[in-house]
Amino acid sequence: MGFKFNNDRIYDIIAIGRACIDLNAAEYNRPMEETMTFSKYVGGSPANIAIGCSKLGLKVGFIGKIPDDQHGNFIKKYMADAGINTSNMVIDKEGHKAGLTFTEIKSPEECSILMYREKAADLYLNPSEVHEEYIKQAKVLLVSGTALAQSPSREAAIKAVGLARKNDVKVIFELDYRPYTWKSKEETAVYYSLIAEQADIVIGTRDEYDTMENLEEGMGENQKSVNFLFKHRPGLLVIKHGVEGSYAYTRAGDVFRGHAYKSRVLKTFGAGDSYASALLYALIRGKDIETALKFGSASAAIVVSKHSSSEAMPTVDEIEQLISENEKK
Amino acid sequence: MGFKFNNDRIYDIIAIGRACIDLNAAEYNRPMEETMTFSKYVGGSPANIAIGCSKLGLKVGFIGKIPDDQHGNFIKKYMADAGINTSNMVIDKEGHKAGLTFTEIKSPEECSILMYREKAADLYLNPSEVHEEYIKQAKVLLVSGTALAQSPSREAAIKAVGLARKNDVKVIFELDYRPYTWKSKEETAVYYSLIAEQADIVIGTRDEYDTMENLEEGMGENQKSVNFLFKHRPGLLVIKHGVEGSYAYTRAGDVFRGHAYKSRVLKTFGAGDSYASALLYALIRGKDIETALKFGSASAAIVVSKHSSSEAMPTVDEIEQLISENEKK
Amino acid sequence: MGFKFNNDRIYDIIAIGRACIDLNAAEYNRPMEETMTFSKYVGGSPANIAIGCSKLGLKVGFIGKIPDDQHGNFIKKYMADAGINTSNMVIDKEGHKAGLTFTEIKSPEECSILMYREKAADLYLNPSEVHEEYIKQAKVLLVSGTALAQSPSREAAIKAVGLARKNDVKVIFELDYRPYTWKSKEETAVYYSLIAEQADIVIGTRDEYDTMENLEEGMGENQKSVNFLFKHRPGLLVIKHGVEGSYAYTRAGDVFRGHAYKSRVLKTFGAGDSYASALLYALIRGKDIETALKFGSASAAIVVSKHSSSEAMPTVDEIEQLISENEKK
Amino acid sequence: MGFKFNNDRIYDIIAIGRACIDLNAAEYNRPMEETMTFSKYVGGSPANIAIGCSKLGLKVGFIGKIPDDQHGNFIKKYMADAGINTSNMVIDKEGHKAGLTFTEIKSPEECSILMYREKAADLYLNPSEVHEEYIKQAKVLLVSGTALAQSPSREAAIKAVGLARKNDVKVIFELDYRPYTWKSKEETAVYYSLIAEQADIVIGTRDEYDTMENLEEGMGENQKSVNFLFKHRPGLLVIKHGVEGSYAYTRAGDVFRGHAYKSRVLKTFGAGDSYASALLYALIRGKDIETALKFGSASAAIVVSKHSSSEAMPTVDEIEQLISENEKK
Repeated sequence: MGFKFNNDRIYDIIAIGRACIDLNAAEYNRPMEETMTFSKYVGGSPANIAIGCSKLGLKVGFIGKIPDDQHGNFIKKYMADAGINTSNMVIDKEGHKAGLTFTEIKSPEECSILMYREKAADLYLNPSEVHEEYIKQAKVLLVSGTALAQSPSREAAIKAVGLARKNDVKVIFELDYRPYTWKSKEETAVYYSLIAEQADIVIGTRDEYDTMENLEEGMGENQKSVNFLFKHRPGLLVIKHGVEGSYAYTRAGDVFRGHAYKSRVLKTFGAGDSYASALLYALIRGKDIETALKFGSASAAIVVSKHSSSEAMPTVDEIEQLISENEKK
Repeated sequence: MGFKFNNDRIYDIIAIGRACIDLNAAEYNRPMEETMTFSKYVGGSPANIAIGCSKLGLKVGFIGKIPDDQHGNFIKKYMADAGINTSNMVIDKEGHKAGLTFTEIKSPEECSILMYREKAADLYLNPSEVHEEYIKQAKVLLVSGTALAQSPSREAAIKAVGLARKNDVKVIFELDYRPYTWKSKEETAVYYSLIAEQADIVIGTRDEYDTMENLEEGMGENQKSVNFLFKHRPGLLVIKHGVEGSYAYTRAGDVFRGHAYKSRVLKTFGAGDSYASALLYALIRGKDIETALKFGSASAAIVVSKHSSSEAMPTVDEIEQLISENEKK
Repeated sequence: MGFKFNNDRIYDIIAIGRACIDLNAAEYNRPMEETMTFSKYVGGSPANIAIGCSKLGLKVGFIGKIPDDQHGNFIKKYMADAGINTSNMVIDKEGHKAGLTFTEIKSPEECSILMYREKAADLYLNPSEVHEEYIKQAKVLLVSGTALAQSPSREAAIKAVGLARKNDVKVIFELDYRPYTWKSKEETAVYYSLIAEQADIVIGTRDEYDTMENLEEGMGENQKSVNFLFKHRPGLLVIKHGVEGSYAYTRAGDVFRGHAYKSRVLKTFGAGDSYASALLYALIRGKDIETALKFGSASAAIVVSKHSSSEAMPTVDEIEQLISENEKK
Repeated sequence: MGFKFNNDRIYDIIAIGRACIDLNAAEYNRPMEETMTFSKYVGGSPANIAIGCSKLGLKVGFIGKIPDDQHGNFIKKYMADAGINTSNMVIDKEGHKAGLTFTEIKSPEECSILMYREKAADLYLNPSEVHEEYIKQAKVLLVSGTALAQSPSREAAIKAVGLARKNDVKVIFELDYRPYTWKSKEETAVYYSLIAEQADIVIGTRDEYDTMENLEEGMGENQKSVNFLFKHRPGLLVIKHGVEGSYAYTRAGDVFRGHAYKSRVLKTFGAGDSYASALLYALIRGKDIETALKFGSASAAIVVSKHSSSEAMPTVDEIEQLISENEKK
């Protein structure tokens, strides 16, 4: 059993949200105080998912705001080269900068990040820069939770969801919770609930569902989350439990479980974005939900073994090979 | 034909939003530069409506934030004396002040206001200060559009609407558009649409509906507004056209027209709030929609002939007398 | 012995800083929660001093910023009618409002105020709006401490002091400390010291000198203050001790004491501004320091017995009469 | 002829201001869009000067604020390892980040930078974090112009200058003008004048002097600048004219000219900081002004031929060798 999309559309998926810069320490397994060199990549959850989807062969568009500087130019060129339509990536004219993420890989288990998100250009996307003509050309609108963290990006994302619903574009809400951009947990819960209730598919970790429900971490239960959201619009809910795998719930009452694949882990960054891109690829290509969960897990297992989150996104062949290797065992 | 409410509730209506101070020039028919004395009243659309409803005999509660100073004390005492439950009026502890409105009455046709809304306490109501236990005790939650203008009041109002829906409390959305508190028309349109789609009854002027639809003033049409909103939750829409009267549309397809009553106009302030309070009174008391429109018009006609917007709110007897006098003619 | 000014100048005194609105409760001897009517006056320390000086017959100019609304129009007209040159009172074009002071007179001993200073227009005076051509026409530049509280008014005031020194205009620094406009006591101390060191005459209460010296209230000593400031530019220091009178110190080593006059006190507001205006009048008219201290005390005694701070400013005759009545005793 | 310092002090020089992170593109001679790797260095004018002075053998202290993260730790450790006393480098506890400078070297003539200065930790140094006990232990306080750009760092720097003057510590003001941190040119001119008038030595480019005098670039004249500042406290003024060399003016009326040394230029960054550190070293070590100008020029010539601004700071031997090589010619 799969999930139905409106097929007479130009784009398989249009993502809205941030496209930023990752600066990954070139030296592994040591604290950042001792690293001297950083490698530059495009980063940010919806950009990574867009790149992942494009690499898998989907037709992808992006709505976002990038700075009018060298980092902005790099982001746009990289995404265009990855095959993404960048016609709705707006150049900021008010001096905002690209968000930055410095990553530190002390050990596979101990990774941390240092974020520069103050006045990040992506948070200044205006609702007037979100166009119905563009959104209505998509099967799917992917909304990243971080796009809701501050105004005016928040209003731009809410407007995009309204336009998607009006034009029968499926809304995928990737919770993508990053605490540092939000004022309070209460505020996050208000907007996460608001958008989740209007989405068709919601994807997040159990902790992110807890945040949406304004619960302490670890206090939520999948069944309660499912009961609540199925009173509203969603048709498919994906809840991720880390190494224990993930669960997919359908409105029809089916429950599917996906298992994590083993991998030689270099770092944990990028797992969620690669998971989402391969899961969406599979759903959009009409595969059933069980297969989609396998695609997500396989893609995540590949990316955590490599240095970047965007550049490392796998091909369909790589994913299928990993799945088939694991099924032989 | 009327409108159904959940009757096993303690409060007829709980309003959420601002309660402020009006400073009305004591001297009429001259520019404010020449006035030397101001009379102090409680003001702010939802406070006025709450006072109006209470004076008509409804059981009323209020959710809002007031300053920790003499103006805040005055507001709370005045509303309590008017019979309103003030247990959920929170005292601001961060130094915010009461919003102020200086009014100038140059002539009945030429009234203007001078607003102090910078860091007004009401805009600092937090979502954590909105309690489900309180809201679920009401038949009706009245949300004022201005409560959506800034964070965190915006999130508090969105949360209140969510709690109302969860607990089968009817949501009345009074558009109450005040441009000076909003960053842009686009931003207003995003939140007005969002809440209107989730409300049971929407009340506003034609211009306010235009604002919600992100149209130039005068470009909107009632039928289009009605077609759009009846795809969502609303069951009753009231659109006001000033001296030409008002229209009420039901989901069932009925259209009712209300006519404005003649009055010796002193000033135009307060007309909308008195209209809303009497209309809501009539609906909650089970009167049919035609009667409710008459109540609204009669109440407005009385208030515009007096000096204040809150203190001047009429009784049921006064309203019924005005209606019956007009029907004799 | 008096104080020398440069006499070939058009203006006796140009004041820089705020001109605002006072709203004085019309009803005395009760808490503001119970007052219903407010009378409107021009207020703000440098505006009051300018009005006081003009009423005493000095030629006065004013540098400040007022809002583009009815309150701004009122302020400008009132000051012009009081004989003040308003050519350098700039109209704010960014929507800032007039500062407001609601006064409450519970009893002569218990007066309090409720301030609206958020984004007050006076604090938005730009350095580019301070003109050398104007300042060089004055004998005296009066700088109010509150003008230093926020940027860009702070930079405008610092620029004015530099231009005054360059053009041999005496700088009078009235400390006028209002805690609510400052971020911290440390910040106040930095700018108060900076300007006091460059001023010719400094006037303030003992508490205000303590603030300048970053001391706890009551920890300062006049002799230490005097020793410190006479290492820099000042030639005359006036330190006020409330009902115990005031002291004037000269660089030459003279000390003069002024005594407070008895008065039927209605409220304490306005005492400092009326004191400063009459003291400055006397010094500019060439009277000796002892006489100037008497003028200050007499003017203060008259204003505290009346309802306003600006409108109540006395004439020379009233002051001289009060002094002569007291000397007879 | 040299310049006299108070010699019974522990520190030769204490610098106040920013210590940040430089991220220099590892690949030269190409646009940043095409560079993939960045090398990390400590940067920021006063930090560079402090490192330069320490490497030359001076005893150096530093007053500044650094973030509570990996970048902050790196900065502090690097400076301590360079021999600088870091006891007055305060750890920010409010989440501010290290300023970042990405550098791009397209060609020796075409270098550009991309700054992250939004809420940079150094700009949050509080006046209460500047201690008289520390400053009075120094011969010289070096103030960087950028420290004046925003509050509260601005007040911290003004306070430091006041304490230096009180304790007979010579104040060196390095104009170090960076437009992106200032609100307006007028604002810069106000604070630059204020501090320059109170400094003992002022160092800057001709363009920076123009900024201080609120002139269009290129409109200033050295003689006018000199005439104005010698009416106040300064005893020595250094004005740099790029490849045409620099001029030093003394209050006694002497004028000295320094010449730029030829160098294989890799990039232009760091020239000013290396110039200042070597000039100050020479003056503090009692060398005459002509020699000090040579030291400055030689140090600059060495740094522009290397990749970083801090790590590349030369030793005394390297400087003396370059001078002697040039004098042989």
